[in-house]
Amino acid sequence: MTSAVELRQLFLKIRGNKVFELFVIGVIIVSALLIGAKTYYIHPQVEQILRILDVLITVIFLVEIIIRMVADGKLSRFFRNGWNVFDFVIVTASLIPIDESEMALLARLLRVFRILRLVSIIPELRILMNALVKAIPRMGYVVLLMFIIFYIYGAMGSMLFEKINPTLWENISISMLTLFRVATFEDWTDVMYETMTVYPLSWLYYLSFIFLTAFVFLNMMIGIVLDVLQTEHEKYNQEQGLGEAGEVHWIREHSELMEQRLERIEEMLKQMKRD
Amino acid sequence: MTSAVELRQLFLKIRGNKVFELFVIGVIIVSALLIGAKTYYIHPQVEQILRILDVLITVIFLVEIIIRMVADGKLSRFFRNGWNVFDFVIVTASLIPIDESEMALLARLLRVFRILRLVSIIPELRILMNALVKAIPRMGYVVLLMFIIFYIYGAMGSMLFEKINPTLWENISISMLTLFRVATFEDWTDVMYETMTVYPLSWLYYLSFIFLTAFVFLNMMIGIVLDVLQTEHEKYNQEQGLGEAGEVHWIREHSELMEQRLERIEEMLKQMKRD
Amino acid sequence: MTSAVELRQLFLKIRGNKVFELFVIGVIIVSALLIGAKTYYIHPQVEQILRILDVLITVIFLVEIIIRMVADGKLSRFFRNGWNVFDFVIVTASLIPIDESEMALLARLLRVFRILRLVSIIPELRILMNALVKAIPRMGYVVLLMFIIFYIYGAMGSMLFEKINPTLWENISISMLTLFRVATFEDWTDVMYETMTVYPLSWLYYLSFIFLTAFVFLNMMIGIVLDVLQTEHEKYNQEQGLGEAGEVHWIREHSELMEQRLERIEEMLKQMKRD
Amino acid sequence: MTSAVELRQLFLKIRGNKVFELFVIGVIIVSALLIGAKTYYIHPQVEQILRILDVLITVIFLVEIIIRMVADGKLSRFFRNGWNVFDFVIVTASLIPIDESEMALLARLLRVFRILRLVSIIPELRILMNALVKAIPRMGYVVLLMFIIFYIYGAMGSMLFEKINPTLWENISISMLTLFRVATFEDWTDVMYETMTVYPLSWLYYLSFIFLTAFVFLNMMIGIVLDVLQTEHEKYNQEQGLGEAGEVHWIREHSELMEQRLERIEEMLKQMKRD
Repeated sequence: MTSAVELRQLFLKIRGNKVFELFVIGVIIVSALLIGAKTYYIHPQVEQILRILDVLITVIFLVEIIIRMVADGKLSRFFRNGWNVFDFVIVTASLIPIDESEMALLARLLRVFRILRLVSIIPELRILMNALVKAIPRMGYVVLLMFIIFYIYGAMGSMLFEKINPTLWENISISMLTLFRVATFEDWTDVMYETMTVYPLSWLYYLSFIFLTAFVFLNMMIGIVLDVLQTEHEKYNQEQGLGEAGEVHWIREHSELMEQRLERIEEMLKQMKRD
Repeated sequence: MTSAVELRQLFLKIRGNKVFELFVIGVIIVSALLIGAKTYYIHPQVEQILRILDVLITVIFLVEIIIRMVADGKLSRFFRNGWNVFDFVIVTASLIPIDESEMALLARLLRVFRILRLVSIIPELRILMNALVKAIPRMGYVVLLMFIIFYIYGAMGSMLFEKINPTLWENISISMLTLFRVATFEDWTDVMYETMTVYPLSWLYYLSFIFLTAFVFLNMMIGIVLDVLQTEHEKYNQEQGLGEAGEVHWIREHSELMEQRLERIEEMLKQMKRD
Repeated sequence: MTSAVELRQLFLKIRGNKVFELFVIGVIIVSALLIGAKTYYIHPQVEQILRILDVLITVIFLVEIIIRMVADGKLSRFFRNGWNVFDFVIVTASLIPIDESEMALLARLLRVFRILRLVSIIPELRILMNALVKAIPRMGYVVLLMFIIFYIYGAMGSMLFEKINPTLWENISISMLTLFRVATFEDWTDVMYETMTVYPLSWLYYLSFIFLTAFVFLNMMIGIVLDVLQTEHEKYNQEQGLGEAGEVHWIREHSELMEQRLERIEEMLKQMKRD
Repeated sequence: MTSAVELRQLFLKIRGNKVFELFVIGVIIVSALLIGAKTYYIHPQVEQILRILDVLITVIFLVEIIIRMVADGKLSRFFRNGWNVFDFVIVTASLIPIDESEMALLARLLRVFRILRLVSIIPELRILMNALVKAIPRMGYVVLLMFIIFYIYGAMGSMLFEKINPTLWENISISMLTLFRVATFEDWTDVMYETMTVYPLSWLYYLSFIFLTAFVFLNMMIGIVLDVLQTEHEKYNQEQGLGEAGEVHWIREHSELMEQRLERIEEMLKQMKRD
């Protein structure tokens, strides 16, 4: 029991150690370079070394996560933190050996996500990521509106243009992909000129779609900027502005009291003078 | 007479019921999926089922809109709300049967717009849509200016380049479509290089057009952001700022009164002292 | 002499007349439609009518500008207004007859600019245009910086890549046009892949160019937004904010005076009590 | 010794002379035009003149920098200014003669950077450049996040698509270049359609990548705008706002003191009245 407590104390120390953190960051970067290196042609002998390195990295990651688990004391406390769950999934997923031919590609793909551990270990990136995640719900309904626009135009496109070019308009999902292409202005005139040979007025379909998506997107951007600005503004007011406004209000009320008091004093003095 | 009132009471209850609302949203989504499904190849037997489903959805929509009409009491009150008109048009338009070969495509196209009922039934989307519609007049004159730029360049392009490539510059409307393509940077250099073989200085035409449209567009965006910010600012000032400014003004005026009173008091005291 | 004054009075009245203004706007729009119509194939008989209409419009414009000149009294006063000079140039330029074959194209091109008179006659567009013109100097030095970047990359591109593809890199001006194409992302990878066959590292040239221009452009946009916001802010402060700050300052100074006065009063009272 | 001091005095005067500055700006512009001119075909005789001009410009630049060095007194003081180092490197680098065939291209390329001296000599451009450089660290972590996204998608793309098209996906660096192309929307559908023939679901790879990069980029832009706005706001508050807030706080405290004093006065008067 005591040794377990001592172990936890030791692991807490290790986890809080700056050198240990830098070492882990270094291992993550080496792991990332390894993944990058494997996409080049590699001499079989070097490949052998890379394989050993990969095992080594996997072991280091495993040890590191166990240290952090033990340091946290309870597993439930460890898994309450989303970033810990994130790390745990990435580390366990890369336990799949890359030797078996069937799973090789999957194992290699999963190892790619180890680079994401950089985000979980560097505090600045973690803050940035949290800010990005917080921005998502704000966009929710606009994305839904966008999807409705795409769905309607996709359905119409598929109905009207399917016979002209089935590659682009075969069904609603392919049509929506084609519309996304139009929205990115990627060779969209080729798509338009083709359908204009059958429906000369189909430019109306494309232009209205481009205007709608651009318009909604523009308003979404402006909306988000204003939303963020307003939140900042309110926070700022609560911190500082209310202080001043509160003081002004205090002064106003007390000025009234002072005025009443002065009136009483003047009254008394007048009386004294008369006496 | 009483039964009519009772019916209206019942329909009002149904309309306000959360389950009923969710049921209608569900039907709209099923209707949207149906429309999407029909763009794929469907087995004739399944198609039969889809046809029955379509009739069912049309009936549900019809019943729902009649419930809402009756619940509102008077038709004029029902139609005063723009969203109700919107729903009514969509529902009646999709009464056209899809069986008749001539009207089939039109009927199917009109059914697509049933997805838009999602916008009219989900309050958040309705608010978003209202905000978008409000943003349109703000852009009015900038769009007019843009159109003038397109018209002038379109007329010039048609005059100068018609003989070089009639497909792109045959008349002013085709020229304006080509210019829209240039404005989206879609293979615009192909258009330019072609005319540069005859008029080597025609790059001036394209570059000035791109700069003008980009410049006007940029200023429009900035203008709208500033416009919205100013409106928010003024609203905020009216609510809160004027409160503080008003209090400060009150304090200033009453400080003056207090000062005069104090002057009188001091004067009286001096006199008393002399006596 | 009297008749000249009377004439001026009459012309002033005409110029200020709302109906006259709407009539001129109508004529400008007809003139614009005429120019647009001429880009289509027209039956010779209709063309005859259009020619007569064109003469009529030219005469109306001439009469209108003479009315405004006379109404202003002095020519120097008339030409002091930039919009008047603008109108005068457009009207006189379109006096060139379109019949002579040599000048026909020029005459037609000059007539296109008559549409711009819409800008000079509709107040809202004039305000918008003034705002756009005011935004130009703000961008001055950024445009100079952009030009320097284009010039340097253009010179380097022409030196390095001229032999690879003279069509794109023959000399510095053609190189700069090619770079503008790269900046608009228009088939820029085709340009890059071509030079990468000779200089495999030339992607550095393109990526650094894209990052530089995008970075400078982004900062320019942000700078302009901030600049405009600051100007608005200062104007707002001068109007309203200083009022409040001034009042607070007044209160502070007078509070000091009141305090001194109160001190004197208390001193006097203490003395009276002692007596 | 005295002559050295006198020389320094003279050079200080020259450096501060407005005409001298304009002359140097003129020489830089001529140098830029020379570089531009050399990218055109030039008659051998004219080329001889250009060569002499180039030597002349090099000498003038050398003389100018020596004048500024001497004027500064100590070399260490001269090199403390980053812009001086910048000028020194550019001037010495262009001492490489352009006659030797081996170094000719390098010498010509280095001469291009002489145009950058415009930035170091025109104060407005220098301010602009400083502002741009200051904006870089603000973007640091977002660029790192972007790089991580590119690296992960690059590694995955290379693993999955290498056999489909080695030109685009051979290794991680080529894959990342291809992804940059996708991010600029440059013929990205061609890349996608190709891989979709083997992996029909690979559109998920492209769309998720486009959304991620666009989303991070958008948030970066908004973040920078807010960051700059906040900095401006705080600066403004420190200058002006705190003044007002400070005064209000002063008034509040002294109002309290005045109130206490008034209470004492009233108490005394009451006592006097009773007596």
